[in-house]
Amino acid sequence: MAKSDDPARKSTRRSFLKAGLGGGAALAAAGVSGGARAAGDPLITEVQDWNRYSGDGVDSRPYGRPSDFESQVVRRNVAWLTADPISSVNFTPLHELDGIITPNGLCFERHHSGIAEIAPQDHRIMVHGLVDTPLVFTMADLMRFPRENRIYFLECAANSGMEWRGAQLNGCQFTHGMLHCVMYTGVRLRHLLEEAGLKANGTWLLAEGADASGMARSIPMEKALDDCLVAFRQNGEALRPEQGYPVRLVVPGWEGNMWVKWLRRLEVGDQPWELREETSKYTDLMANGKARRHTFAMDVKSVITSPSPQAPLMHERGRTVVTGLAWSGHGTIERVDVTIDGGRNWHTARLDGPSLPMALHRFYFDFDWDGSELFLQSRAIDERGLVQPTKDALRAVRGENSIYHNNGIQTWHVGKDGTVENVEIS
Amino acid sequence: MAKSDDPARKSTRRSFLKAGLGGGAALAAAGVSGGARAAGDPLITEVQDWNRYSGDGVDSRPYGRPSDFESQVVRRNVAWLTADPISSVNFTPLHELDGIITPNGLCFERHHSGIAEIAPQDHRIMVHGLVDTPLVFTMADLMRFPRENRIYFLECAANSGMEWRGAQLNGCQFTHGMLHCVMYTGVRLRHLLEEAGLKANGTWLLAEGADASGMARSIPMEKALDDCLVAFRQNGEALRPEQGYPVRLVVPGWEGNMWVKWLRRLEVGDQPWELREETSKYTDLMANGKARRHTFAMDVKSVITSPSPQAPLMHERGRTVVTGLAWSGHGTIERVDVTIDGGRNWHTARLDGPSLPMALHRFYFDFDWDGSELFLQSRAIDERGLVQPTKDALRAVRGENSIYHNNGIQTWHVGKDGTVENVEIS
Repeated sequence: MAKSDDPARKSTRRSFLKAGLGGGAALAAAGVSGGARAAGDPLITEVQDWNRYSGDGVDSRPYGRPSDFESQVVRRNVAWLTADPISSVNFTPLHELDGIITPNGLCFERHHSGIAEIAPQDHRIMVHGLVDTPLVFTMADLMRFPRENRIYFLECAANSGMEWRGAQLNGCQFTHGMLHCVMYTGVRLRHLLEEAGLKANGTWLLAEGADASGMARSIPMEKALDDCLVAFRQNGEALRPEQGYPVRLVVPGWEGNMWVKWLRRLEVGDQPWELREETSKYTDLMANGKARRHTFAMDVKSVITSPSPQAPLMHERGRTVVTGLAWSGHGTIERVDVTIDGGRNWHTARLDGPSLPMALHRFYFDFDWDGSELFLQSRAIDERGLVQPTKDALRAVRGENSIYHNNGIQTWHVGKDGTVENVEIS
Repeated sequence: MAKSDDPARKSTRRSFLKAGLGGGAALAAAGVSGGARAAGDPLITEVQDWNRYSGDGVDSRPYGRPSDFESQVVRRNVAWLTADPISSVNFTPLHELDGIITPNGLCFERHHSGIAEIAPQDHRIMVHGLVDTPLVFTMADLMRFPRENRIYFLECAANSGMEWRGAQLNGCQFTHGMLHCVMYTGVRLRHLLEEAGLKANGTWLLAEGADASGMARSIPMEKALDDCLVAFRQNGEALRPEQGYPVRLVVPGWEGNMWVKWLRRLEVGDQPWELREETSKYTDLMANGKARRHTFAMDVKSVITSPSPQAPLMHERGRTVVTGLAWSGHGTIERVDVTIDGGRNWHTARLDGPSLPMALHRFYFDFDWDGSELFLQSRAIDERGLVQPTKDALRAVRGENSIYHNNGIQTWHVGKDGTVENVEIS
């Protein structure tokens, strides 16, 4: 793992080579670890420093951090993408992760005026507009309502947006890394709205953040009353500052921009507000120059996270794990297919772990690599039976003006030397 | 949350008081936030700094960390408990957490010679003993086997051990905090053993760590072949150093000491090794001076995490959330009962989230507090129908010599002023 997956260390690759299927070398045979390490390998027979000397004690890190050997596992940005880091994005290192939980320190960030640093005791959430009684909640108030915990993915509508015009970015961290999945703790948005008393004509809700950008979005009341959460924890602990500390909206399955961070205001109205973030941005410009609006849900999608450009194959042939993520804003994932030959043959992948609606699903395809070049793709099918489309199929309908909602099938080319590239095939 | 839950800030409690059921105050009424904040409350009408100025950009923290306002949410040790921090323990701050996932930075630590710092490319796992072909695996080898992801609790056998002789420690972090729950990624231990080829008389397995203590335990082969994992990730990213980086054993439902960290050696034998950690330690000394051995599974157990001594009630009466955790080393949790009057009346708690075997289960009991004193208890029932016992029932069978496997019902006394204490009632 770790260092051995780091493309920068590609030159050490051959020290990991294996004959045959790999996976364990006979101690007595000359073939231990591909011949480089025989029975007398000092790594087996000598006492290492970590076995000789005691390490740091339990009081060394009250809040822990990753091993120094994992320093490459970080969020990364793309310098040329935005003019200023205060209105920018960085990306989750999907190629370094497994399972479906994203550690809090690695959840991608997107903000419009930097990270608001809010003192929780001074934060308020106001509910007003078409309600019987306008209300103000402190954080302490909020935590006296019944709580729920749910694992949901959050995907930016612009995830994979740079790929509309062909293969652009070399790594799933950059092509698909505006994506994370954590367990949220919060209260149903419905409880706060019902406490204020919704008027009959209250069909839309405005959610506004307390950051300097005052980011705001209109949400149909039907969704607000269905499954939205006002959340204050992620993976058990308080929300991270860059994820909206002390409180954010959770809008399961819908585009990340609507999950308003640093939530301070909920206004009930009878029509959408048509703000900048739902007209100039977060609409889908079609080939004819007209824009689709209110395309809120994230469609069925998947990506192979390893191997991928930042996680090349480090062996020559044999037992090989292909793994990735699948998700749908419309519910659970029913099936994932994987191809290694660019779509000539598809194989049903193994779905692992609990299947939760509007959460990431981890899939695996274990196969014996014969050392030839590969064209890897994954194709997800959600509980509605909808199948993830090709990028060409998307372009045929929507042209190439789009930025948002690109859920097309991703292709990785694996060379005979194990290197991986972002490509398109027709 | 955060500051307002901090006992050290108890003197500010009255600024959060509420009339009636609480949970939102009318904007126009004098009663906004209990009278302290009226409609003209500057916290509502004035622009705050975080709304006026942009914050840090996305490139400020490649690996994120919690808000500075959450500095009290840390692992803590008990200074008098052990002679030296290199062979010691610290505790998960359960009272500050919600849901069932423990963030990696807050998982309690227990090690016998400090934290081994292992370079993953130099680490090896040897499988030998009663096998056809002794094998050595690199980390790269390991990751070519089929992987699985599972959410499991890990509880130290000594968790709550100091409570055998009565209420000792004032906080669930200390009484129950040798407990965490994460999603592990790993390969089945079975795959490695089958690759080496088990001999027919291989009925026991020795698992040994690469740290300076060379911590080792004997595991029945039946368990090793059933559900044990050789794990290299927790909550998606690499194991933390203090949790066994780069690789540890996962022994679902069984005492934490057996989940050997920094795993380097697996020896197949035909009987248990009877090492220090399974004779002098991790056995259960009965009243008659004899010790029970091989009490591996962690029994059905629960604890209320809030309110608790470190998380007092901050309001005078009204809508109140009681929450806690339940778990069983024998499978899922069927039901949790909560009492607020020391067991005279029991109420069925609300179980939240996915019910996963040998994982934590989060429960809630929402009630209207009348401001009188409370004696809070929770009682878990697992899928076998086994009911968590009282501490007195445990002592009647096992005496008071024990350290390990205390799964007795915990009582918290809540005073009229909201303070909470660890007590025992008969």
